[in-house]
Amino acid sequence: MKIRFLPKGLEYTFETGKSVLKLAAEAGAAIDGNCAGNGTCGKCKVKVISGNDEKISREEKLLLSVGEIRAGYRLACKFRPINDVIVEVPLEEDAVKRKTKLMAMPDSLIIQNGYKKQFVRIEESTIQNQASDLEKIKKNCGLDERGTICSELIKKIPDLLSEKREITVTARQNEIIDIEAGDATTECYGLALDIGTTTVVGHLWNLITGELIGVNAVTNPQGVFGADVISRITYANESKENLENIHQKIIACINGIASEFSETYHVKLEHIYEITFVGNTTMSHLLLGVNPRQLAVAPFAPVFVKSVAGLASELGIRINKNAKYYLMPIIAGHVGSDITAGILSTGIMHGDGIHLMLDVGTNGEIVLTGRGSAITCSTAAGPAFEGASIFKGMRAAEGAIEKIKIEDDVRIQVIGSTVPTGICGSGIIDAVAQLINSGLVDWTGKFIKPEAMIEKNIPESIISRFRKSERGNEFVLAYNSDGEDIVILQKDIREVQLAKAAIYAGIRILMNRMGITDDDLDKIHIAGAFGNYIDIDSALTIGLLPKIDKDKIISEGNSAGIGACMALLFSDKQKEAERTAEAVIHVELASCTEFQDEYVKSMSF
Amino acid sequence: MKIRFLPKGLEYTFETGKSVLKLAAEAGAAIDGNCAGNGTCGKCKVKVISGNDEKISREEKLLLSVGEIRAGYRLACKFRPINDVIVEVPLEEDAVKRKTKLMAMPDSLIIQNGYKKQFVRIEESTIQNQASDLEKIKKNCGLDERGTICSELIKKIPDLLSEKREITVTARQNEIIDIEAGDATTECYGLALDIGTTTVVGHLWNLITGELIGVNAVTNPQGVFGADVISRITYANESKENLENIHQKIIACINGIASEFSETYHVKLEHIYEITFVGNTTMSHLLLGVNPRQLAVAPFAPVFVKSVAGLASELGIRINKNAKYYLMPIIAGHVGSDITAGILSTGIMHGDGIHLMLDVGTNGEIVLTGRGSAITCSTAAGPAFEGASIFKGMRAAEGAIEKIKIEDDVRIQVIGSTVPTGICGSGIIDAVAQLINSGLVDWTGKFIKPEAMIEKNIPESIISRFRKSERGNEFVLAYNSDGEDIVILQKDIREVQLAKAAIYAGIRILMNRMGITDDDLDKIHIAGAFGNYIDIDSALTIGLLPKIDKDKIISEGNSAGIGACMALLFSDKQKEAERTAEAVIHVELASCTEFQDEYVKSMSF
Repeated sequence: MKIRFLPKGLEYTFETGKSVLKLAAEAGAAIDGNCAGNGTCGKCKVKVISGNDEKISREEKLLLSVGEIRAGYRLACKFRPINDVIVEVPLEEDAVKRKTKLMAMPDSLIIQNGYKKQFVRIEESTIQNQASDLEKIKKNCGLDERGTICSELIKKIPDLLSEKREITVTARQNEIIDIEAGDATTECYGLALDIGTTTVVGHLWNLITGELIGVNAVTNPQGVFGADVISRITYANESKENLENIHQKIIACINGIASEFSETYHVKLEHIYEITFVGNTTMSHLLLGVNPRQLAVAPFAPVFVKSVAGLASELGIRINKNAKYYLMPIIAGHVGSDITAGILSTGIMHGDGIHLMLDVGTNGEIVLTGRGSAITCSTAAGPAFEGASIFKGMRAAEGAIEKIKIEDDVRIQVIGSTVPTGICGSGIIDAVAQLINSGLVDWTGKFIKPEAMIEKNIPESIISRFRKSERGNEFVLAYNSDGEDIVILQKDIREVQLAKAAIYAGIRILMNRMGITDDDLDKIHIAGAFGNYIDIDSALTIGLLPKIDKDKIISEGNSAGIGACMALLFSDKQKEAERTAEAVIHVELASCTEFQDEYVKSMSF
Repeated sequence: MKIRFLPKGLEYTFETGKSVLKLAAEAGAAIDGNCAGNGTCGKCKVKVISGNDEKISREEKLLLSVGEIRAGYRLACKFRPINDVIVEVPLEEDAVKRKTKLMAMPDSLIIQNGYKKQFVRIEESTIQNQASDLEKIKKNCGLDERGTICSELIKKIPDLLSEKREITVTARQNEIIDIEAGDATTECYGLALDIGTTTVVGHLWNLITGELIGVNAVTNPQGVFGADVISRITYANESKENLENIHQKIIACINGIASEFSETYHVKLEHIYEITFVGNTTMSHLLLGVNPRQLAVAPFAPVFVKSVAGLASELGIRINKNAKYYLMPIIAGHVGSDITAGILSTGIMHGDGIHLMLDVGTNGEIVLTGRGSAITCSTAAGPAFEGASIFKGMRAAEGAIEKIKIEDDVRIQVIGSTVPTGICGSGIIDAVAQLINSGLVDWTGKFIKPEAMIEKNIPESIISRFRKSERGNEFVLAYNSDGEDIVILQKDIREVQLAKAAIYAGIRILMNRMGITDDDLDKIHIAGAFGNYIDIDSALTIGLLPKIDKDKIISEGNSAGIGACMALLFSDKQKEAERTAEAVIHVELASCTEFQDEYVKSMSF
């Protein structure tokens, strides 16, 4: 039997018995999911175009709307095709595009990374001057005569010099890493990779001119094994094959990014000489193929934390044979090299004053620097801010409500300006903040009684959106005549409360350790996509952030990716990353007696 | 059709049309040869046991004796079998055994090479101490926390620590290069390889205890492409396949030596962590697979001269995956890393006074140190001293006359105390020296007239051995009733004259450069097998060496092999080797106007 995945058109031959999610994993098609195929998250929807002749499961009836089922939607984890089938995978490209735009780096930099590429003519030896070819090459390039070179390149020399004797020599510090015929002096590239759990962002740089050639973001194909790191750790730890499989997924993804760069910008893969990586601790382990099982259970000890470097070819990355990879140092089990990179790019270790850096995802990573020290913690926010665990939550893709204002009526802003199909993280924060500001939700996080709404003179147009359903109290953000209304549930508000409390308690713990209050904070740096799209007022309203002056809060964009680029372009930044990761003290909230107190205190609005 | 090579029993299936020499090359059987299959040297004799039904060639009739032809001998380069055949390859093992014995090194040394192998127990992490596994390993082993490790080893950690948590860690300086379960602290080995054109000698050392575990010498299997370097360069330069083929021959040989060590001494291949190489410039190039064609023509410029290091696995050497190789630096096109190693092991760069080092083979390499400088040259002695180009010459194998005394009669000493079948290098020098001392040959190198012999009262028993044949004047060293007598021809004496003149002229040139006379020389060091077996008196008689006191002349044994061991065992010796190769000034005799003068002057006895 054959399955075809639209819109990419990927085809795969299969035998019956497997779910579409599993087949997608085998075929290399990316389908989002959140619960590793357990049929509980309802996120792995696909539209069956033809071949839909199996019974709809109980889980699907529960998790899909009637409209969706009528339109042919199924859950990829439950639908096991028994003959030829064509499925359409909803596009998440918008999220990707949005991430790409986050990269705010200057177009051209004066870089210092030890790369030199020189075009030289090598004179023939004479009986008076019997210098070896390699000595002449080093001398003409001004390289240390004892500089190293691998045997594979020495082998190329006789043929290269038997013709025109004009060659291009690529050196990294004093090591010769490439020799080519003719003039290829401008062809020297490097890749910086930010391996997110959801999205992998690559930057292609010219290591000689310092130009940013291109940015490319793709969905992390490990997503087929679960949206969150815990699902992936569980999968990876099931067998050696699984570990290898999930490791190869990210390697294939990196090779894909490199190939796409190569085609788009006419850059030969063998002209890419270095690659730097950042990612959370689990992503860092999986990148190297190291079993991350310890990261899922206390005491969350990583297998390694220091930076790891080696030949990119050892990881199966197909760029120049002598290309090196550099994986930035990790800080702790839940504070990965992406945070090290963020610290590097925001410069908060150097700045005067006291700085708080926040990176919100399923985990919220918090870094506090100042008064001669740097401390960090990670707090389990849960997936609320990523749209998961919220009834109508979705990723920041087309159709997601991203901004909400409640005044006389509810005004929404939808990604792609289309009919809303859900609500993403920034929208959820807005919704809760607006419900609080309008008085519909009290400080405990509860919808007030309808009588109280009337008492408070809340407009009828707003009150009418409040209703009770079998799901409990809910508020309609957008009506939908064709399908289900987009609502926010009482339960959703509780989820937001738990998430923001976790993060705020983490911030408090660090501030207590340093002995500071809100007033002492000079800057809050919000890293990642989250920082770019949330409304700062809303974040302050729900109590996610310490109450400080709004203009002391900065959105840092893709600070992890920028940090990876800095390590690629400036050799001394790699050393700074080592020092940073060693200097930052990790506070384990699980061993922190005051955490529960702070958590409960942070719960209310 | 099948061919079987005795005594090893190697079998190979073939199609007709190829010579036995070619089939041996393909099958991996070593057959000596000197002219790369041109049918001119007559050295590639094999005995056909069955299947000999092709016509004997003109070359074979010329080069084989009637007795040999009757006994079934053929030249491997000319015999093209047309059906199943069994051939016996004469054993050269004696030469190999003799070379093995040359190694005079202490059994146990206190070595300094940066290797540490430690058995440690790694405590489990706790919520209070979340240190990564790798950090704990480094700490327990006292290694720098930033010390490097490859991803493949990090991958092994989770499984190794999931069981007994007791591991053995191997470190080279601060780099972790191996992690194993249990206690393997004594298993840490290194190989030193001396790659001779004829013989490859390997030494296996324990890098922790400093014990010499074993020595193994085998015939260089590249010999099937010719005995001398020029034949091998010619072969290698014919095509890319040939170059790869001859390169793979030496790699297979090295793997064979390692495997044999592994079996004999119960040493696992993955416990061999380092390998050092020395060899002449051609052997060094072929080891790395670098085309050596430039070494065959003026100006003899090598492709590389500095030391080359890398992963042994890159060369296809199957020892530990992280094992490094180190190829010692070369001095010039005809002064290889074997000479660098010899200088290292004889210590002539450090000693007081003036030292002359001599390594005699097809080329004679000469090094002169003292008065703050070090100079070297290589002189084309030709193969006379190796038994080739001499009518009855042969290698130092069973049946070779190795010592000769001419008094009342001729007394000979034969390797293996058997019937003599030829004469090896030391025997040839003895023969010529004894002919001069007895007055049979005059200072010009000519046999004196029979009348003059009688005048000089030379005993009749000696005079009777002098005779004329179709080959010219000759002197019988040993009569042979079953086959041909072992004789020394007038032409042979001429060959010795040319060879010793080349070497002596080279010595003179260096001495002139330094401005010294024979009296200034404090020591002469004779390297290699040649030095161990030649009679110093005979060498002085024929004028191969400057006339100095006999006890100032030292035989250094396998000084190249010893130098390779030193580089393996003492890290600072690698640095000394670099400095040595840079400090020694190469004098190219081809560009030396006074060489011809010296050469002609050195010709007479």
